[in-house]
Amino acid sequence: MNPMFELKLDLAAKGSRQSAQVLYRELKLAILDSRLLPGTKLPATRDAARVFGVSRNTAAEAYERLLSDGLVHTRRGAGTFIAAIARKTSRVKGRPRNDSRLNPFWLSADIGKSLDFWREQPNALPNAAAIDFRPALIDTRLFPLDVFRRVSVQQLRRLEKKPASFKSPQGNQGHFPLREATSRHIALTRAVVCTPEDILVTAGAQQAFDILARTLVTPHKTVVAIEDPGYPPMRVPFLAAGAKLVPVPVDEEGLRVDRLPADTRVICVCPSHHFPLGSSMSARRRGELVEFARKQGAVIIEDDYDGEFRYEGSPMEALRALAEDVVFYVGTFSKCMWPALRLGFIVAPPWAMPTLVSAKNAMDWHCPTPLQMGVARFMSEGHLKRHVRKLRDIYKRRRDALLAGLEAEFSEWLSPIPSLYGMHVAAITHKPVNLERLTLQLLKSQVKLHSLSRYYLGTPAQCGLIFGLGSVSEREIRQGLAALGRALPKL
Amino acid sequence: MNPMFELKLDLAAKGSRQSAQVLYRELKLAILDSRLLPGTKLPATRDAARVFGVSRNTAAEAYERLLSDGLVHTRRGAGTFIAAIARKTSRVKGRPRNDSRLNPFWLSADIGKSLDFWREQPNALPNAAAIDFRPALIDTRLFPLDVFRRVSVQQLRRLEKKPASFKSPQGNQGHFPLREATSRHIALTRAVVCTPEDILVTAGAQQAFDILARTLVTPHKTVVAIEDPGYPPMRVPFLAAGAKLVPVPVDEEGLRVDRLPADTRVICVCPSHHFPLGSSMSARRRGELVEFARKQGAVIIEDDYDGEFRYEGSPMEALRALAEDVVFYVGTFSKCMWPALRLGFIVAPPWAMPTLVSAKNAMDWHCPTPLQMGVARFMSEGHLKRHVRKLRDIYKRRRDALLAGLEAEFSEWLSPIPSLYGMHVAAITHKPVNLERLTLQLLKSQVKLHSLSRYYLGTPAQCGLIFGLGSVSEREIRQGLAALGRALPKL
Repeated sequence: MNPMFELKLDLAAKGSRQSAQVLYRELKLAILDSRLLPGTKLPATRDAARVFGVSRNTAAEAYERLLSDGLVHTRRGAGTFIAAIARKTSRVKGRPRNDSRLNPFWLSADIGKSLDFWREQPNALPNAAAIDFRPALIDTRLFPLDVFRRVSVQQLRRLEKKPASFKSPQGNQGHFPLREATSRHIALTRAVVCTPEDILVTAGAQQAFDILARTLVTPHKTVVAIEDPGYPPMRVPFLAAGAKLVPVPVDEEGLRVDRLPADTRVICVCPSHHFPLGSSMSARRRGELVEFARKQGAVIIEDDYDGEFRYEGSPMEALRALAEDVVFYVGTFSKCMWPALRLGFIVAPPWAMPTLVSAKNAMDWHCPTPLQMGVARFMSEGHLKRHVRKLRDIYKRRRDALLAGLEAEFSEWLSPIPSLYGMHVAAITHKPVNLERLTLQLLKSQVKLHSLSRYYLGTPAQCGLIFGLGSVSEREIRQGLAALGRALPKL
Repeated sequence: MNPMFELKLDLAAKGSRQSAQVLYRELKLAILDSRLLPGTKLPATRDAARVFGVSRNTAAEAYERLLSDGLVHTRRGAGTFIAAIARKTSRVKGRPRNDSRLNPFWLSADIGKSLDFWREQPNALPNAAAIDFRPALIDTRLFPLDVFRRVSVQQLRRLEKKPASFKSPQGNQGHFPLREATSRHIALTRAVVCTPEDILVTAGAQQAFDILARTLVTPHKTVVAIEDPGYPPMRVPFLAAGAKLVPVPVDEEGLRVDRLPADTRVICVCPSHHFPLGSSMSARRRGELVEFARKQGAVIIEDDYDGEFRYEGSPMEALRALAEDVVFYVGTFSKCMWPALRLGFIVAPPWAMPTLVSAKNAMDWHCPTPLQMGVARFMSEGHLKRHVRKLRDIYKRRRDALLAGLEAEFSEWLSPIPSLYGMHVAAITHKPVNLERLTLQLLKSQVKLHSLSRYYLGTPAQCGLIFGLGSVSEREIRQGLAALGRALPKL
């Protein structure tokens, strides 16, 4: 038997019509998967019984269908061959294509750019060998996967087998024990006081933004202010919801509240640890922001992606603790646990929660129960607290190594922005340097470092670099800075 | 010590300001959770050290904050008491409230009704004790949870710990082995031939509809045809995306293609097993539909929620097998596996896939990796195939029991619609009967049975009942029909 044709066929106890169908499918899959390459000769139909275990007619029927699909061609007297065009015509890759059947929104270059902000260049795949200073990455090697596995299994065992399964309003808002554990976690780490009823479990922070965009934005009417620079993927759900997006500058005290248009109805901020600048919003600016929101009937979305990681002093309260009536607090388990879990949450004012739950229902009903159970248990057994403490120490050491290196070698042209929290540090350049060229040059030495310009929607107000600490060891930080030092004089 | 105040306090090594914050938080949580009931007296501040382990001033500060929240009140000389209004004012339940800060779309009664189609009455919770003929339910007791647990753990063990974790374009489309296993599964069960590159993994069918609505609909422009009657929750994402929704009638051959407006650009159908009528679309009607789509530049969304469960004869091919260029095939693991996994998929034409992936990214990046790995393994080890075969037998026996019961006792006024697939059977009434009254009456006998009218968007063209078989045993079917027989003469 030709080993090339050891296709897994499941032809037992099937009629010949269905056998032809299965054979056709298996061959087509093999062709499209490139397991059968162009030019390969298919077995003669008279050998079908031996090779495929089907009758000659069955094989002929399958070949006929492949022929009509253009996946094979026949040469008189020579047999049936895999066609050369088979693979090429079946695949379309890359950026969304213009097609009148598609909503043009998704075809705009801005959308692709916002979602791909983290990529070095279009279509570049992450290279694990590199020294990776990109922000918003985390080092999943640090996650106690064995513990998570153990508690997950325990939870799956406890899972009640219910006769009927359907969406319950409470379940749609999120698994109750997860909401309970979350409310305790953020009360301790972020001083956010709420009950499980105030929490909606979401598929990460990105879905939280999408739910908020769809419920808070009336298309072509609602003015949404975002920080500039900011986290690019957050912009997309708001644009998709038809928001009038207004970029607002950020200074050392945080969002410039005095620059908010009077008709702003939604204000998106990262008050604990600005993305990407790393600064914290001052108490005075927080007061002004809340006052603006209350006076103008606006709401505030507080993105608190890494607020657990505070290095010095007692934690500053989340903005939500200051103004429960107008603040939607967005948290995520991607940074403090594991991004692949796709879990996050919104703490919402009671007047908005039923609407948020409706939107979540329409989008995907609820988040997967087994994962929610695992995370709830991971938290209630104290593993998250321990893990956060461990990460905080690790990130602090990385930050100290970075700051020491910047101070020792680069103080002439780079000033780190003071940062009390989190997983990245931004540094502003004093001297005019072509940072785009610099980062491209570093990429050639396998160092991934972003210029701040990448995070601006409007014209960049400051030039600088952002050093993500999530996936670089202290040794890699020193190596990366050495590479930066070597690249610098060449500019 | 008053056991009522055995609050878990984490005050060690904290300053007094933070202790006050923690005490405040714990007391607030206890009040909102109803662990501290209205009228309860709080310990005097002079006892704070003994009761809470904090100073008098610290306790006073915490009480002060509770007072300003309105959660406690003081009576001169008597002390501090939990306020009566505390619980009431902090919770808002039920339907979305009108608030000018919210997008009015979600506040419309139609949206709530579509999402809640499965509930007996607003705010009614599922009652596990009832005989439950509601469609789209499944009997999760049948799911081999032990097998799923085993393969999930194996997968979690194999999970590679990667230094940096971010969204990769391929990962965003779905875990590759899951897409591979899915392509094999639907090739065998549904004759849908595709490669993993044609598949986008979604958070269930509901998110598939949402992604398709957001990518195929240009707001206030795109005409979307839906079957009437149909699956109510599917309408919501299309309405939310700004589609012009056109209900189109269904006859015994399926969707009335001749009634599609010429400017229809998206057509949503359940050709294998109509929801809720249960009929299959005829080959002739399928041909007409595909011809319409190709001629008008329209696309077809094929909702194949239970196409694996075919009872007799060889499976009819999915519509997608007939027209890969214009059909988006939507499948789900909710029916053949377990709804709480929230996993489904879209098989899309190559011209649309990059846009679908963009939308998925903007919505939640990708589905949770651990679950996708578990389901992929469950499939590749053959468990899904076995499970589907088992369910098919069970559902067939239930269907036969139902049809026998209807034939024996109700043939005078109920005609079942022939149905070759799936998990429910609809039956049309010959005689004028007030079905709304009938189903309400049955509810009093703990039998949940829906009238077809609930599934119409426009005026119901047919009157009848829908018997879901997902969560009723054969015995329960007989009991349910007996209750139906008792309720009937009373009308």
